Parts: sequence; C-alpha cells; structure tokens
Amino acid sequence: MMNRRSFFGVSSLALLAAGCQTPCGGKCESVAAKRRPDGVYTLGKVPFKLGMAGFTYHKFNIDQTLAALKKLEVHYLCIKDFHLPIKSTQAEVDAFKRKCADHGVTGYAVGPIYMDAANMDFVKEAFDYAARIGVKTIVGVPFEKREIGGKSVRHESRTLCEKLSGFCDEYKINYAIHNHGPDIPYLFPNAESIMAMVKDLSPRMGMCLDIGHQFRDNKDPAAAIRNFHSRIFDLHLKNVSDNSKAGRAEPLPRGRIDLVEVVRALCDVGYAGCCSLEFERNFTDNYAEVAECIGYFRGLMDSVRA
Amino acid sequence: MMNRRSFFGVSSLALLAAGCQTPCGGKCESVAAKRRPDGVYTLGKVPFKLGMAGFTYHKFNIDQTLAALKKLEVHYLCIKDFHLPIKSTQAEVDAFKRKCADHGVTGYAVGPIYMDAANMDFVKEAFDYAARIGVKTIVGVPFEKREIGGKSVRHESRTLCEKLSGFCDEYKINYAIHNHGPDIPYLFPNAESIMAMVKDLSPRMGMCLDIGHQFRDNKDPAAAIRNFHSRIFDLHLKNVSDNSKAGRAEPLPRGRIDLVEVVRALCDVGYAGCCSLEFERNFTDNYAEVAECIGYFRGLMDSVRA
Repeated sequence: MMNRRSFFGVSSLALLAAGCQTPCGGKCESVAAKRRPDGVYTLGKVPFKLGMAGFTYHKFNIDQTLAALKKLEVHYLCIKDFHLPIKSTQAEVDAFKRKCADHGVTGYAVGPIYMDAANMDFVKEAFDYAARIGVKTIVGVPFEKREIGGKSVRHESRTLCEKLSGFCDEYKINYAIHNHGPDIPYLFPNAESIMAMVKDLSPRMGMCLDIGHQFRDNKDPAAAIRNFHSRIFDLHLKNVSDNSKAGRAEPLPRGRIDLVEVVRALCDVGYAGCCSLEFERNFTDNYAEVAECIGYFRGLMDSVRA
Repeated sequence: MMNRRSFFGVSSLALLAAGCQTPCGGKCESVAAKRRPDGVYTLGKVPFKLGMAGFTYHKFNIDQTLAALKKLEVHYLCIKDFHLPIKSTQAEVDAFKRKCADHGVTGYAVGPIYMDAANMDFVKEAFDYAARIGVKTIVGVPFEKREIGGKSVRHESRTLCEKLSGFCDEYKINYAIHNHGPDIPYLFPNAESIMAMVKDLSPRMGMCLDIGHQFRDNKDPAAAIRNFHSRIFDLHLKNVSDNSKAGRAEPLPRGRIDLVEVVRALCDVGYAGCCSLEFERNFTDNYAEVAECIGYFRGLMDSVRA
C-alpha cells in the first residue's frame, strides 16, 4: 500500500495550486459550525431571529406546542390567545412564562388579535394583556364594520387606528397590523395599504408583514421589506403556490415565493425582529412539514451571509 | 385616506434612488421560484441532485419508504438490500422499479453492500444485481478478514479491490467505497484511505464520501470534495455533533459540519451525482428530523448559487 503521508503531500500541493483551502490536518475546529447560546448551530450572520407564529399550532395545546418547539430548537413564539387567554391574570401569565422558559421558549409578541372599533374596552384589555406579559409588540387586525353591497364587512378604520396610535405611545408597545391578502380586500390586503394608514401615526404603528398574503395579493415581499422596513415589527414566514387568491400554503422550499430574496432583503435593511413561521395546512399533524420549513429557513440563514 | 397611487409613486422613486429592485407592479412572475420537471421548486443552480440513502429507512418497508419520499418530493434512492434483496429475479426487480416510478422515485445506485474477499461468488452476484437493476454505481465496503491483536477484524483488501476493478470494467459499473470513520479503523476510515487504494485502479473505482464519518475521523469534508472529486461517485449527507469518534448523528442544521462549505465545494468541482441523506437516529420515527434535514439542504441548494 502506498505511503499515505506522501500521498497527502502531493494532494495538498495540488489543492494549494488550485487556490483551495488546505485540509484541516490535526484540527477541524475552523470548519465547524458554531453553536449559539440559544442552542442552535449557525454559520451565517443574519441580524434576525427564527420564531413560530402560535397559529401554526392552533390545534395543539400549549404543552404540545412547547414540546414541538423544543424538538425543533425554536426559541421564539408569537403567543395566540388560545394558548394564553386575554383575560389571564398576572399569576396565570407568570405560570405560562415559566412553562415557556422551561422549554427554552420566549413569548416575544402576542396575536394576531382582531379588534373592533365598536369595542374599545376589548382594545384596552388587549394592551393590558400585552403589558402583563411584557411583550413589546401586539400583532393586530383593527377593523370597523361597514355595509358594502348590502353585506356587513370588516373594513379598515382610520378612527380606530388613531386611537391605537395613542395606546401605543401610552403603553410603549408597538402595534403590528397583519395583512391578509385578497381574502379580506377591505382590511389591509397588503403592506402598501398598512403603510398608507400608519405613515402619519405614531412610529409605533406598523406591520406584521405576512409574506404569503403579500404574494397572494400579487405583490413582491422582498420589495415590501426594502420599502417599509422602518415599520416592520414582525414577519410571518410562509410560502404559497400562486401569486393570486388561489395561492395555497406550501412547505417553504416548495412554493413560489423567492425566499432567498426575502432573506437578502432582511439582511440588507438590518431587520432585527423575528421571522415567525405561520404554516397553515395539516394543522393536526404538521410535524414533518413544519420541520421541513424550519430546516429550509435555517439553510437560508446559514448560507445567505456565510 | 391617502391616494395609494401617489403613495406608490413616491415609494418607487425612493426605492430606485436606493438602488433597489422596483416592486413587481402587475406581475410577480420574475420573483417566483421555478418548479423543476421533477416537482420541486428551486432557485439555485447546483449541478447535483438531492437523494436518500436507503439506510435512513431500514426500519421501514419499501411502501413506507416510498410514501415518505413522495411526501418530501425526494426523487432519488440508493437501494439497500433489505428493500430489494440481492437474489431478486429480473421480474422482482422490474416490479420494484415500477413501484418506485409510481412514487416519482428512481433507484440510482445500490448499497452499501459489504463484500468479503473470501466470497467472490457473492461479489459477482452483487454486480449481476446492479446490472439487473440498471444502476451505474455500487456503494460497497470491500474487506478481508485478518487477525490483529488476537482478534479477527475486517481489513482493507488490495487483492479484492484489484478484482473489483476488473469487474467495474467488465460490467461498466462504478464501485464507490464507503468510508466509515474511526469505528472501523482498518477498513477505509476516510476518503484519503480510499484514494490511496483506488488511485492506480480503474477510474471506475472510487468512493461514496460519507461526510459524517469523514468529519468524525477529524478530516475536512469540503477539502475531500475539492481534492478527490474525480473519484467521488456518491455522497452520504449527514451532520454530527463532534469531529471525533464521539460524534453522533444530528439533524443537518444542528451539527458541527459546515455544510455551506460542502455545497460550495460540490458546486466548485461540478459534482453532478447525488447527495443522499443518511440520517442515523430515531429510525422508527424520523419523519420530522428527516424533513428538517431535507429542508435545510434545499435551503443551501437554493441559496449558495442563487
């Protein structure tokens, strides 16, 4: 058998001549991925975090939800009211937060919470709820009822948004309006309609950009990030099968949104919030598809800025 | 409410001034991911394919295996003998291939098959098996038994490899020796030991580079790809927790191998074979972890050359 050392010698020279990295020799530390304090190995240097929208697990109770997040090593959750009711006492909130912490999870925001201009008591309750939890962002869908074509529809409400703007300043909490695409055309279908509403309100009034609904409304999610980043407080990560109302939920690697461009845009604008997966199919058995999504986004996070 | 068209006008100008892509306006086709003929949306232009090593599903029968692959839209399988026995008749092989095709799966190689220098009848059977299936690659572990320190161990065999080299030329089939890291130190622990064996044999003698075992043997997988690509016929994709014998299987985003560098190396050398996931834990319920791995690698495939 040939002498291996001489074989490596030739090989290393050929490698150097080709401008390649030399083999690691005795130590491979330099090529190893880095494990962050929050537990996940990472290679890239993206400024944002990966999280989960509570709605992904709306058929799971909080114990099932936290177990699923722990398996995936996902550490940020946007809390939905079916996991922590809005009327929860401070003691119930504290117990919920301890349970999350036991699974390595932080509830970083609440919502989406639908808010009716006709029920300002509920609006105040929601701000009190966010304050009790200690989150800095409420994801919300503020509306007023209007009659259009003989039907009662939920419609954008300037009056309510002005009141919300006041609450934001009073509570020092951001309000992130969630866009819903062509399904609810009068109620913030896209990022552009949210910007038109909030641009002259408190800087705490902004959006949770749902990139799936943005694309279903035939708008470019990456362009929305580049245009409106100063008002983007949260982001719902998804992929969909079409840039129309017919677009349906797909695992992140299998839809038509160019998520590489989305991640590049997030890096370019320095987005430092969460990108939270909102996966909207197979709600009772979504383990594998959610894991595929989380894996895909980690691949983009590791490689786009590596 | 402000006129949205005038709002967009200002916004687009600001965007152009910042050197950004303009919003898509009426059509988002240009930002959409492309669906390949094999069904998976893709953004990048990597020269290689994503596949599955049959061993990942060694606790599944072939129906369960194909159902799992179909859900993940994985189209290439390295066939293990527990899914298609080596003594299968041509009729059994044809039925197996039809079943694979019904799930959108192609069996592109067979193995790993352990081959003992003392049983040349079996070696010939294995080549006949590969020929019946019509694959161009056998992944193998060729050995001879030797006494070392009073124990019988499986050891590399020059004699057998020379005979395999002849079979390769006769059958026009490639033989890809699988490295097994520090667990079997006398039997091709790393890519370097395989190259030392095959470099003066038929060009059809090469390796199935197991990047997990390469890293567990404290070698750099990306450097092995750059050094030895002309002899790499297949690749087992995995991640592990450490660059030592203590290294254990982890989902791809959570181990210490820098897979971004692996994908870059594969692109740079123009590797055009399969990268097949061999996921070696939780064999009876690996759906979510395998999906996370497949998602992660698709993220790298989409972004590294996008």
